[in-house]
Order: sequence, then C-alpha cells, then structure tokens
Amino acid sequence: MGKKVRGGRLPGFRLRGRIWIEGPDGTFLGYGRVVLLERIRDYGSISAAARSMSMSYRHAWRLVESMNRQGRYPVVEKRTGGRGGGGAVLTETGRHAIASFWKAYHEFREYMLERSAHLDL
Amino acid sequence: MGKKVRGGRLPGFRLRGRIWIEGPDGTFLGYGRVVLLERIRDYGSISAAARSMSMSYRHAWRLVESMNRQGRYPVVEKRTGGRGGGGAVLTETGRHAIASFWKAYHEFREYMLERSAHLDL
Repeated sequence: MGKKVRGGRLPGFRLRGRIWIEGPDGTFLGYGRVVLLERIRDYGSISAAARSMSMSYRHAWRLVESMNRQGRYPVVEKRTGGRGGGGAVLTETGRHAIASFWKAYHEFREYMLERSAHLDL
Repeated sequence: MGKKVRGGRLPGFRLRGRIWIEGPDGTFLGYGRVVLLERIRDYGSISAAARSMSMSYRHAWRLVESMNRQGRYPVVEKRTGGRGGGGAVLTETGRHAIASFWKAYHEFREYMLERSAHLDL
C-alpha cells in the first residue's frame, strides 16, 4: 500500500504554549497576574481591578500578596485611608515586572510561531 | 530614599512554561498524551498503559481516539480478538509523533533556560 507516514507538516497543526515567571513561592507572574497589575495601575484600586476582571477581591488580594512577598520590593502599594478609604498604586518595580513579562511573552510568541513552521508531523 | 528598583536578575526567579501540539480539534499531543503513547508501545495494550499511569481506561481510550481522529493516519491501531482479547500497537505515525514532540520539548527547554538567564526582574 505504501502508506506515506511522514508527510512533513500537517495543515492545521501548530505548537501552542504558555509561560510564566516562577519565584521562590511558585508562580510570581503569569498572564492573569499581569493583567491584574495593569488594571490596578489603571483603576488605582485592587477591588475595582478585581471587579473589572470578574475576580473576587479575596483572590485578587491574595495574588497581590503573593507578588509583593516574593520580589525584592512590592509591586503594589496599598494606601489605607484617604479618599474612598484607600487605594492601591502600582510601584516602579511593578511597572518593570509588567514590562519584563510582556517582553518574554512576545519573544516566546515569536519563538512558537517560528518553531510551529517546522513542526514535523 | 533612592530605592534600587531594577536590580537585574532576582535570584530564584525563572521562566517556566508548557507546550503542546494543537490539531484541528484542540490538543493533539502534550506531555501526558506522549507518555500514554509510550506506555501503549511498551505494554501493547491501552488498558495496561492506562493502568500504569493511574488513568481510567475510558480516559485513555478517549485520548487515543482524539489523536487518531486528528492526524492523517492513526497513531495507535487497535487489534481486536487474538491473544488476551486484543491489544493496541503504536504505528509508525505514532512513533514519529512522539519523536517530533520530544524534539520540540527539548528545544523549548533549552530556549527557556537560555531566556531565564536574562530575565530582567
């Protein structure tokens, strides 16, 4: 019958993947955490950021605690009191962490695209 | 205060990731599926392979069906009857798919290692 078993690339097949930055306590920064940080930057509040992502405040708070605990400096500073009973501010460290993640993320996407092109199936 | 916010690489931080091959129906081949195929190759039976991974036969069977349905040729051939009521054989296509996955996997690990080394946190 002479079945052709190695046809080079099968159409519709591609390499997919996911990356995250791991710290001493497990995940430090992944896609969801980065979006949360960006929302905190934009809304100036963990609860508003959480709400905008349909995430519970409790969960968002825990993610922020996890990031703040792991880095050399906090990524988010919580402000108690003041207008509206306190808000949250993305720190310079937080801004830098976001940028580092997106840089790695976009490089990874390029890598996957390139690698998919010579996937031998 | 002059906080040092960009300290280069934080020790203990690294890039982690996961890859899989996506086909027309979603996942075609990932780490777990590849291990299942290797066990089928070694045991000559889907049920023995599933048992060795503490996976239900039903689940293993569905994974095999998903892989067989998506490729140009099946990765596993089921043999009905014969000794022991039928077994399963990894095809040449299956062997080739395993090799392609491990190749991508190891290249990806190299990439992640290299990329971790210049993670700027």
